[in-house]
Amino acid sequence: MSAEILCVGSELLLGNITNGNARWIAEQLAALGVPHHRQQVVGDNRERLMGAVREAAGRCRLLITTGGLGPTPDDLTTEAIAAAFATPLAERPEVWADIQAKLAARGRPVTPSLRRQALLPVGAELLPNATGSAPGMIWSPKPGFTILTFPGVPSEMRAMWQATAVPWLQGSGLAAGVFGSRMLRFWGVSESSLAEQVADLLESANPTVAPYAGAGEVKLRLTARAASIAGAEALLEPVEAEIRARAGMACYGRDDDSLASVVLEQLRRRGQSLAVAESCTGGGVGAALAAVPGASDVFRGGVIAYANTVKHQLLAVPAGILQTWGAVSDPVAQAMAEGVRRATGADWAIAVTGIAGPGGGSADKPVGLVHIAIAGPDGCGSEGLRFGASRSRSWIQALSVGEALNRLRLQLLAI
Amino acid sequence: MSAEILCVGSELLLGNITNGNARWIAEQLAALGVPHHRQQVVGDNRERLMGAVREAAGRCRLLITTGGLGPTPDDLTTEAIAAAFATPLAERPEVWADIQAKLAARGRPVTPSLRRQALLPVGAELLPNATGSAPGMIWSPKPGFTILTFPGVPSEMRAMWQATAVPWLQGSGLAAGVFGSRMLRFWGVSESSLAEQVADLLESANPTVAPYAGAGEVKLRLTARAASIAGAEALLEPVEAEIRARAGMACYGRDDDSLASVVLEQLRRRGQSLAVAESCTGGGVGAALAAVPGASDVFRGGVIAYANTVKHQLLAVPAGILQTWGAVSDPVAQAMAEGVRRATGADWAIAVTGIAGPGGGSADKPVGLVHIAIAGPDGCGSEGLRFGASRSRSWIQALSVGEALNRLRLQLLAI
Repeated sequence: MSAEILCVGSELLLGNITNGNARWIAEQLAALGVPHHRQQVVGDNRERLMGAVREAAGRCRLLITTGGLGPTPDDLTTEAIAAAFATPLAERPEVWADIQAKLAARGRPVTPSLRRQALLPVGAELLPNATGSAPGMIWSPKPGFTILTFPGVPSEMRAMWQATAVPWLQGSGLAAGVFGSRMLRFWGVSESSLAEQVADLLESANPTVAPYAGAGEVKLRLTARAASIAGAEALLEPVEAEIRARAGMACYGRDDDSLASVVLEQLRRRGQSLAVAESCTGGGVGAALAAVPGASDVFRGGVIAYANTVKHQLLAVPAGILQTWGAVSDPVAQAMAEGVRRATGADWAIAVTGIAGPGGGSADKPVGLVHIAIAGPDGCGSEGLRFGASRSRSWIQALSVGEALNRLRLQLLAI
Repeated sequence: MSAEILCVGSELLLGNITNGNARWIAEQLAALGVPHHRQQVVGDNRERLMGAVREAAGRCRLLITTGGLGPTPDDLTTEAIAAAFATPLAERPEVWADIQAKLAARGRPVTPSLRRQALLPVGAELLPNATGSAPGMIWSPKPGFTILTFPGVPSEMRAMWQATAVPWLQGSGLAAGVFGSRMLRFWGVSESSLAEQVADLLESANPTVAPYAGAGEVKLRLTARAASIAGAEALLEPVEAEIRARAGMACYGRDDDSLASVVLEQLRRRGQSLAVAESCTGGGVGAALAAVPGASDVFRGGVIAYANTVKHQLLAVPAGILQTWGAVSDPVAQAMAEGVRRATGADWAIAVTGIAGPGGGSADKPVGLVHIAIAGPDGCGSEGLRFGASRSRSWIQALSVGEALNRLRLQLLAI
């Protein structure tokens, strides 16, 4: 019952464009509950296209193609598919009439090459294209194998998918059941140690649980298959609860949550406000907070204290502390946090000062050393973290932003 | 002599992520002159992975895989490739030592599951991973067929490609000839109007010129093929000069330049400093500047004046101006720029205040309205820009950051 996607276009093989169509169709198939095991990309080449179609016919029940339906000589998809099953092409008069009508409505000339688009294999059903000129087809060249073809233009492909492919898939019985999915988000745990904590669940067949790692963040995707959305949710619920129980506070949220959105929500519930004082992140913590819609009822702003003079002048970090301890130190991080809390009147403050590299490190204070302070109504604490000198500047900055937000999150949870 | 790309990961089949790795590698293969005829995606499934590898071995000379090298049970790539050619795996002690050393440097626990990453097929060569824990391999399981494996994490994959795969491809004779390439970067011109300005050059065969568009930025990639690097450079030089002459000041840089790095370099040459005052971008301009290594000799920092009280208290924006004109206005943008210039002692200041949405807009001041001010030794100017209410919050923030930096760039060029 499985499906494959075949995207046709030399521009994909040259790396000129990203294959957004494959991702979009993959998402749709998952949502419809159609199992999907393989994607392929081939160029505008008749022989390779025929080969790919024949191989797919031996493996899957449903082949979805994008691209190569247009009027130019390198648009070969329909022709190659017909040839792969030794079936002749025939012109569909209604398609040719439709193409001419659309061009007339746009005041465009009708060129002879456009007529190629009205050719479909004998026996194929039309997959209408309401907006563009190239239609697709629904064709079963052999029992138990159906091909759906779409143009490569994303807007046309998507409209045709919704209007015709979805009802066809549901009617054909290929879209059996529905998939429901949740993404759980973690900070402060490595992918490997999280995977060990939930090793038995990674083996589960329904729901499936799969780990992903990003820049400091780890995610688990839970996907359940059921007859209805409610059934899928009922399968997901206990697995999510079990994972949350095992992972504890490392699980910070779900789906569209970010560390920033979670922290903002924690403070919003308390009616408290937040400010930031940033050195090595240069505004990255503030930008992460400002990325969340509605941040303004909690986030006041703060100071980008990149130069030491700014730490001193705008945050009142004493010159003596800067001299004695150096800018990357707990006393300076704490003075920055307290300084910005005082200057903005915020209830809470996050301060970050560190060495993002690649220059500026020493044996004592290597690249990747970052001090993070959190100041709140009950005082101020800080810690020095070592992210490792082998990390890139952007990676150290991203980890610093995440760690700073996560520390405030954990502190608020503990109160 | 052709290459194929095989990307491994159920997240690709579920449509959770776009296959950016395939595009990036495709671009690199094109730049190296390696013909590339097919891409495939399969999930974390041992049998299907083995099947895809065996099929590729019958078709191509070089197979490049991404993904599935990590420590979790669904990371199956190395194991499946070895099984496809009935070759046993053996632990590489130097890899296991390297993994333990990296974790120790980061203060992370060494978990047993990580040891799987030190297993490679007997006879395979190591493809080192300088930043992450999972190495890849270079392996020829049969004559005339070589597999290169990479992790799915884009930053690790790209670093490994540049450090090891490129020299290997050149040394192996698979990369025939030399490709030289430059990426020219533009701001303040649309992709379509830039494409019209250089329409004749887009038809050129050597060098080729191809346009790309990002978030506000437009790029042209120039790629020349020649017998030597010097030969490729000689072909690129006049085409770059011609494009720069046509595009004028819209071309802000090349290759690794960013608007932030160009502005920092302009100021560095003058021995001048810069500060920022940000409202709707929340620190995004500062973070863009801090992302550039060595920013500290020019960038002093500034104030994230998200709340009006912070605009007033830290930047001395008069309460009367805020009340009369509103926070999103030219007078407030200018008062913010002058305020942060005064507070930090910087020679130049950028201020941004706007409505990033989705809430907060009105008929008079819609979502997407952003005022940008530049203050310098000779005074202060500002302008209100409308990015359009249909844009997302993150898009409006990114355009605001780029526009603000570009305005200072143009002003410095004009002096």
